[in-house]
Amino acid sequence: MVQADIATDETSRLIASNKVEGTNVYNREGEKLGSIYNFMVDKRSGRVEYAVLQFGGLFGLGSDHYPLPWDVLTYDTAQGGYAVNLDRAMLEKAPRYTSDREPAFDRDYGREVYGYYGVSYPF
Amino acid sequence: MVQADIATDETSRLIASNKVEGTNVYNREGEKLGSIYNFMVDKRSGRVEYAVLQFGGLFGLGSDHYPLPWDVLTYDTAQGGYAVNLDRAMLEKAPRYTSDREPAFDRDYGREVYGYYGVSYPF
Repeated sequence: MVQADIATDETSRLIASNKVEGTNVYNREGEKLGSIYNFMVDKRSGRVEYAVLQFGGLFGLGSDHYPLPWDVLTYDTAQGGYAVNLDRAMLEKAPRYTSDREPAFDRDYGREVYGYYGVSYPF
Repeated sequence: MVQADIATDETSRLIASNKVEGTNVYNREGEKLGSIYNFMVDKRSGRVEYAVLQFGGLFGLGSDHYPLPWDVLTYDTAQGGYAVNLDRAMLEKAPRYTSDREPAFDRDYGREVYGYYGVSYPF
Protein backbone atom coordinates (compact mmCIF):
# COMPACT_ATOMS: atom_id res chain seq x y z
CA MET A 1 0.00 0.00 0.00
CA VAL A 2 3.02 2.25 0.09
CA GLN A 3 2.54 3.05 -3.58
CA ALA A 4 -1.01 4.32 -3.04
CA ASP A 5 0.08 6.38 -0.05
CA ILE A 6 2.84 8.04 -2.01
CA ALA A 7 0.48 8.90 -4.83
CA THR A 8 -1.81 10.59 -2.29
CA ASP A 9 0.81 12.69 -0.62
CA GLU A 10 2.97 13.37 -3.60
CA THR A 11 2.53 16.30 -5.90
CA SER A 12 4.42 16.91 -9.09
CA ARG A 13 7.16 18.72 -7.17
CA LEU A 14 6.98 17.75 -3.51
CA ILE A 15 6.93 14.56 -1.52
CA ALA A 16 5.94 14.00 2.12
CA SER A 17 8.69 12.85 4.50
CA ASN A 18 6.47 10.37 6.34
CA LYS A 19 5.54 8.70 3.06
CA VAL A 20 9.15 8.25 2.01
CA GLU A 21 10.02 6.60 5.31
CA GLY A 22 9.39 2.89 4.87
CA THR A 23 9.38 3.00 1.07
CA ASN A 24 11.24 0.11 -0.55
CA VAL A 25 14.48 0.65 -2.41
CA TYR A 26 15.35 -1.51 -5.42
CA ASN A 27 18.37 -1.71 -7.65
CA ARG A 28 18.30 -1.59 -11.46
CA GLU A 29 17.81 -5.36 -11.58
CA GLY A 30 14.63 -5.04 -9.52
CA GLU A 31 16.25 -6.62 -6.46
CA LYS A 32 15.01 -5.16 -3.17
CA LEU A 33 17.92 -3.65 -1.26
CA GLY A 34 16.01 -2.43 1.78
CA SER A 35 13.79 0.53 2.68
CA ILE A 36 14.17 4.19 3.59
CA TYR A 37 14.53 4.62 7.34
CA ASN A 38 14.60 8.43 7.53
CA PHE A 39 16.21 11.60 6.15
CA MET A 40 18.94 13.62 7.75
CA VAL A 41 18.17 17.31 7.23
CA ASP A 42 20.42 20.33 7.68
CA LYS A 43 18.82 22.33 10.47
CA ARG A 44 19.77 25.72 9.10
CA SER A 45 19.23 25.32 5.39
CA GLY A 46 16.44 22.73 5.42
CA ARG A 47 18.27 20.67 2.80
CA VAL A 48 18.16 16.89 2.94
CA GLU A 49 21.76 15.74 3.20
CA TYR A 50 21.04 11.99 3.30
CA ALA A 51 18.20 9.58 2.71
CA VAL A 52 19.03 6.66 4.96
CA LEU A 53 18.60 3.15 3.55
CA GLN A 54 18.03 0.40 6.09
CA PHE A 55 18.53 -3.29 5.66
CA GLY A 56 19.36 -6.33 7.71
CA GLY A 57 18.14 -6.99 11.23
CA LEU A 58 14.58 -7.75 12.26
CA PHE A 59 12.03 -4.91 12.18
CA GLY A 60 14.83 -2.39 12.33
CA LEU A 61 16.54 -3.94 15.36
CA GLY A 62 20.22 -4.39 14.66
CA SER A 63 19.82 -3.22 11.09
CA ASP A 64 22.50 -1.33 9.24
CA HIS A 65 21.83 2.23 8.10
CA TYR A 66 23.34 3.41 4.81
CA PRO A 67 23.26 7.17 4.29
CA LEU A 68 22.71 7.94 0.59
CA PRO A 69 23.02 11.27 -1.20
CA TRP A 70 19.52 12.43 -2.14
CA ASP A 71 20.37 12.46 -5.86
CA VAL A 72 21.20 8.73 -5.87
CA LEU A 73 17.49 7.90 -5.44
CA THR A 74 14.96 7.96 -8.27
CA TYR A 75 11.31 7.21 -7.68
CA ASP A 76 10.12 4.34 -9.87
CA THR A 77 6.35 4.32 -10.23
CA ALA A 78 6.36 0.86 -11.85
CA GLN A 79 7.99 -0.67 -8.75
CA GLY A 80 6.26 1.60 -6.26
CA GLY A 81 9.57 2.40 -4.65
CA TYR A 82 12.94 4.04 -5.14
CA ALA A 83 15.44 2.81 -7.66
CA VAL A 84 19.16 3.17 -7.16
CA ASN A 85 21.94 2.28 -9.55
CA LEU A 86 23.82 0.14 -7.02
CA ASP A 87 24.51 -3.55 -6.71
CA ARG A 88 24.77 -5.43 -3.45
CA ALA A 89 28.55 -5.74 -3.74
CA MET A 90 28.90 -1.95 -3.82
CA LEU A 91 26.48 -1.53 -0.94
CA GLU A 92 28.34 -4.08 1.13
CA LYS A 93 31.41 -1.84 1.17
CA ALA A 94 29.47 1.40 1.58
CA PRO A 95 29.63 3.72 4.60
CA ARG A 96 27.12 2.52 7.19
CA TYR A 97 26.26 2.74 10.86
CA THR A 98 24.00 1.07 13.38
CA SER A 99 21.34 3.16 15.11
CA ASP A 100 23.17 3.01 18.44
CA ARG A 101 26.44 4.24 16.87
CA GLU A 102 25.70 7.19 14.67
CA PRO A 103 28.55 8.98 12.96
CA ALA A 104 29.37 12.63 13.67
CA PHE A 105 27.70 13.70 10.39
CA ASP A 106 30.34 16.35 9.96
CA ARG A 107 31.58 17.54 6.58
CA ASP A 108 34.45 15.03 6.47
CA TYR A 109 31.89 12.26 6.79
CA GLY A 110 29.75 13.93 4.13
CA ARG A 111 32.64 14.02 1.67
CA GLU A 112 33.39 10.36 2.39
CA VAL A 113 29.78 9.26 1.78
CA TYR A 114 29.16 11.42 -1.27
CA GLY A 115 32.56 10.46 -2.66
CA TYR A 116 31.78 6.77 -2.32
CA TYR A 117 28.75 7.24 -4.59
CA GLY A 118 30.63 9.50 -6.99
CA VAL A 119 28.60 12.60 -6.14
CA SER A 120 30.19 15.94 -5.30
CA TYR A 121 29.43 17.07 -1.75
CA PRO A 122 27.57 20.40 -1.94
CA PHE A 123 27.24 21.33 1.75
CA MET B 1 10.48 11.58 25.65
CA VAL B 2 10.60 13.48 22.39
CA GLN B 3 13.37 15.65 23.78
CA ALA B 4 15.59 12.65 24.52
CA ASP B 5 14.90 11.17 21.11
CA ILE B 6 15.87 14.36 19.38
CA ALA B 7 19.08 14.57 21.34
CA THR B 8 19.93 11.05 20.21
CA ASP B 9 19.33 11.56 16.53
CA GLU B 10 20.45 15.13 16.31
CA THR B 11 23.95 16.23 15.55
CA SER B 12 25.19 19.77 15.59
CA ARG B 13 24.17 20.23 11.95
CA LEU B 14 21.62 17.59 11.02
CA ILE B 15 18.31 16.38 12.37
CA ALA B 16 16.42 13.16 11.58
CA SER B 17 13.07 13.52 9.82
CA ASN B 18 11.35 10.84 11.90
CA LYS B 19 12.34 12.63 15.10
CA VAL B 20 10.94 15.94 13.96
CA GLU B 21 7.60 14.36 13.09
CA GLY B 22 5.49 14.50 16.24
CA THR B 23 7.60 17.16 17.93
CA ASN B 24 5.57 19.82 19.72
CA VAL B 25 5.47 23.39 18.47
CA TYR B 26 5.14 26.29 20.93
CA ASN B 27 4.78 30.01 20.49
CA ARG B 28 6.96 32.61 22.22
CA GLU B 29 4.57 32.63 25.19
CA GLY B 30 5.13 28.91 25.71
CA GLU B 31 1.65 28.01 24.51
CA LYS B 32 1.50 24.72 22.62
CA LEU B 33 0.22 25.31 19.09
CA GLY B 34 0.34 21.74 17.84
CA SER B 35 2.96 19.33 16.55
CA ILE B 36 4.89 18.68 13.35
CA TYR B 37 3.03 16.25 11.11
CA ASN B 38 5.60 15.90 8.32
CA PHE B 39 7.84 17.79 5.87
CA MET B 40 7.16 18.45 2.23
CA VAL B 41 10.41 17.99 0.31
CA ASP B 42 11.25 19.05 -3.24
CA LYS B 43 11.91 15.81 -5.09
CA ARG B 44 14.61 17.20 -7.34
CA SER B 45 16.56 19.45 -5.04
CA GLY B 46 16.00 17.64 -1.74
CA ARG B 47 15.11 20.93 -0.05
CA VAL B 48 12.40 21.03 2.61
CA GLU B 49 9.79 23.49 1.35
CA TYR B 50 7.42 23.18 4.33
CA ALA B 51 7.35 21.76 7.82
CA VAL B 52 3.68 20.97 8.37
CA LEU B 53 2.15 21.92 11.72
CA GLN B 54 -0.89 19.92 12.77
CA PHE B 55 -3.50 20.85 15.30
CA GLY B 56 -7.14 20.23 16.01
CA GLY B 57 -8.94 16.93 15.50
CA LEU B 58 -8.42 13.73 17.44
CA PHE B 59 -5.19 11.77 16.85
CA GLY B 60 -4.76 13.50 13.52
CA LEU B 61 -8.25 12.69 12.25
CA GLY B 62 -9.89 15.81 10.93
CA SER B 63 -6.96 17.95 12.01
CA ASP B 64 -5.86 21.02 10.10
CA HIS B 65 -2.41 21.08 8.51
CA TYR B 66 -0.52 24.36 8.40
CA PRO B 67 2.46 24.41 6.05
CA LEU B 68 5.24 26.56 7.53
CA PRO B 69 8.42 27.81 5.87
CA TRP B 70 11.35 25.90 7.39
CA ASP B 71 12.96 29.12 8.64
CA VAL B 72 9.96 29.97 10.81
CA LEU B 73 10.84 27.11 13.18
CA THR B 74 13.54 27.31 15.83
CA TYR B 75 14.39 24.38 18.05
CA ASP B 76 14.08 25.31 21.71
CA THR B 77 16.00 22.90 23.93
CA ALA B 78 14.38 24.31 27.09
CA GLN B 79 10.90 23.38 25.86
CA GLY B 80 11.98 20.22 24.04
CA GLY B 81 10.16 21.38 20.95
CA TYR B 82 10.02 23.97 18.21
CA ALA B 83 9.35 27.60 18.90
CA VAL B 84 7.64 29.86 16.40
CA ASN B 85 6.99 33.55 16.63
CA LEU B 86 3.25 33.26 15.96
CA ASP B 87 0.17 33.80 18.04
CA ARG B 88 -3.04 31.83 17.70
CA ALA B 89 -4.83 34.72 16.02
CA MET B 90 -2.27 34.75 13.22
CA LEU B 91 -2.39 30.98 12.87
CA GLU B 92 -6.17 31.02 12.69
CA LYS B 93 -6.01 33.01 9.46
CA ALA B 94 -3.04 31.12 8.03
CA PRO B 95 -3.08 28.93 4.91
CA ARG B 96 -4.18 25.43 5.88
CA TYR B 97 -5.57 22.22 4.47
CA THR B 98 -7.08 18.97 5.68
CA SER B 99 -5.29 15.73 4.83
CA ASP B 100 -8.03 14.69 2.39
CA ARG B 101 -7.81 18.01 0.52
CA GLU B 102 -4.20 18.82 -0.12
CA PRO B 103 -3.33 21.91 -2.12
CA ALA B 104 -1.52 21.72 -5.45
CA PHE B 105 1.77 22.78 -3.78
CA ASP B 106 2.67 24.76 -6.86
CA ARG B 107 4.74 27.92 -6.79
CA ASP B 108 1.71 30.23 -6.49
CA TYR B 109 0.76 28.38 -3.33
CA GLY B 110 4.34 28.63 -2.11
CA ARG B 111 4.41 32.39 -2.58
CA GLU B 112 1.07 32.67 -0.74
CA VAL B 113 2.29 30.63 2.24
CA TYR B 114 5.74 32.18 2.50
CA GLY B 115 4.24 35.64 1.99
CA TYR B 116 1.79 35.10 4.85
CA TYR B 117 4.73 34.52 7.20
CA GLY B 118 6.75 37.38 5.73
CA VAL B 119 9.43 35.12 4.26
CA SER B 120 10.62 35.40 0.65
CA TYR B 121 9.87 32.30 -1.38
CA PRO B 122 13.18 30.87 -2.63
CA PHE B 123 12.03 27.98 -4.83
